[in-house]
Amino acid sequence: MNETFQALRACFEGELTRVFAARTDIPEPLFSAMKYSLFAGGKRIRPVLCLAFADLFGKKEEAMPFALALEMIHTYSLIHDDLPCMDDDDLRRGRPTCHKVYGEGMAVLAGDGLLNLAFETLLSADLTRPGFLEAARTIAACAGGTGMIAGQCADLEGEKQPSCTEDHVAYIHLNKTARMMMAAGMSGALAGGADPASVRCVEGYCRSLGLAFQIQDDILDLEGTVEELGKNTGHDQKKQTYPRAIGLSASKARAERLFEEAAESLRGLNKKTDFFLELLENLSGRRK
Amino acid sequence: MNETFQALRACFEGELTRVFAARTDIPEPLFSAMKYSLFAGGKRIRPVLCLAFADLFGKKEEAMPFALALEMIHTYSLIHDDLPCMDDDDLRRGRPTCHKVYGEGMAVLAGDGLLNLAFETLLSADLTRPGFLEAARTIAACAGGTGMIAGQCADLEGEKQPSCTEDHVAYIHLNKTARMMMAAGMSGALAGGADPASVRCVEGYCRSLGLAFQIQDDILDLEGTVEELGKNTGHDQKKQTYPRAIGLSASKARAERLFEEAAESLRGLNKKTDFFLELLENLSGRRK
Repeated sequence: MNETFQALRACFEGELTRVFAARTDIPEPLFSAMKYSLFAGGKRIRPVLCLAFADLFGKKEEAMPFALALEMIHTYSLIHDDLPCMDDDDLRRGRPTCHKVYGEGMAVLAGDGLLNLAFETLLSADLTRPGFLEAARTIAACAGGTGMIAGQCADLEGEKQPSCTEDHVAYIHLNKTARMMMAAGMSGALAGGADPASVRCVEGYCRSLGLAFQIQDDILDLEGTVEELGKNTGHDQKKQTYPRAIGLSASKARAERLFEEAAESLRGLNKKTDFFLELLENLSGRRK
Repeated sequence: MNETFQALRACFEGELTRVFAARTDIPEPLFSAMKYSLFAGGKRIRPVLCLAFADLFGKKEEAMPFALALEMIHTYSLIHDDLPCMDDDDLRRGRPTCHKVYGEGMAVLAGDGLLNLAFETLLSADLTRPGFLEAARTIAACAGGTGMIAGQCADLEGEKQPSCTEDHVAYIHLNKTARMMMAAGMSGALAGGADPASVRCVEGYCRSLGLAFQIQDDILDLEGTVEELGKNTGHDQKKQTYPRAIGLSASKARAERLFEEAAESLRGLNKKTDFFLELLENLSGRRK
């Protein structure tokens, strides 16, 4: 990733560390279990997208509560996804998953705790500022039963089905992955004071980026190594994925086209969007 | 319960039904799993407390978003508590638990979905009204890693300990049970426009009521029947409970004293609190 990404990431990382240092009122081992997964070396794409779009519209710092909430929600979803009754994964980002270290019950609570803390963080923001309440509502809607959780539901149900259809995969990718990317960009833009037309452009960029990102995940599960990815591979065989639905080379072409569509969405902004174009280039070549 | 309780409960039940009838955008089987547990015949004590205190200060209807969120949070916590990796309960309110009907993975998601929906509901309220943002923040704090989830954590950890201490039990009861009762009363009072001193009285009433309520739960686990309670009994033997810590008769005396302390807390309100006194009487004799 480029320097701007690293700078935004460092800014976010510092604030996340500060917030958690102040939350020693959360008891052990719950606190450690929450921290274990939150500080596990995630890419921080969602908070960086949020801060970068807020910055594009002139108000980077103010979007921090939204960036924090986005990463907490993303992390809780990974903890619950990794549980034996869900994807049953032992490895995440090169380390044992939360339930392998703290037990399944504590992992359920750590996920619940992070989801709740995300909303505590959103509600602690000054929601009277322009765009703030809409930003918080956007994150809540994208994370919930008509967003990310709807995608997780379809993902879980899809494992029971013998066949794999493109429609089903598209639904899962849009909801499980793209919706939280859209929440990231839109909440940042809203907190930054973007007008409705600009928010729609940001939404389109993040939707295409998120869809491309998840197709890459499907491809990497087939082509990547455990060392590169930090998680076990080849366990998507029973899942609804693009490679299963339309084949590997068509999936790669689809991801490329989506990255192009993301770039096109930026044009409507009439702003200096170099960072967001570079991000697409960096992500399109990712191996983890 | 008395007529006022039934009326407030019916009012809440109607609104909850209306809200869910409008949420068919949540996909199956997630939607059914969420509804299954939410409409399982719960007592609705938390939403009724919320609405009743808002009513006491003159604004019953306005507290509805808080009443809805409280019951959604309470229900999600029961779904996750019943999971095999937590309390491993098959029966709740006389019916199979959520994971017995929908599977463990879907039960995790149904709980997550209800927690998220609780905050979607809070954020959809007009948070610019006096007391509303503080009411929402109070619920978020009482439900989270320094409230209810802290209590669940201590409850889970307590099962590993050979001995049972009064301090540990008191911590679990305060956080796991009383905090959400406090959130119920305080959010209602705040939405109703109560002054800070009155909110403190409401907090005290709900704390004592919640603590007494949980001691009763411990006692009923020993003395009640499966038919009366609608859940399996006698499985608290490895748990941290008052009967284990101080004995059965001392526990009964403690619960009675807490009901009296709850009544005393009402005096500071200088209002007609007959409903809240009657509620204590009704609850003190409960067999389920």
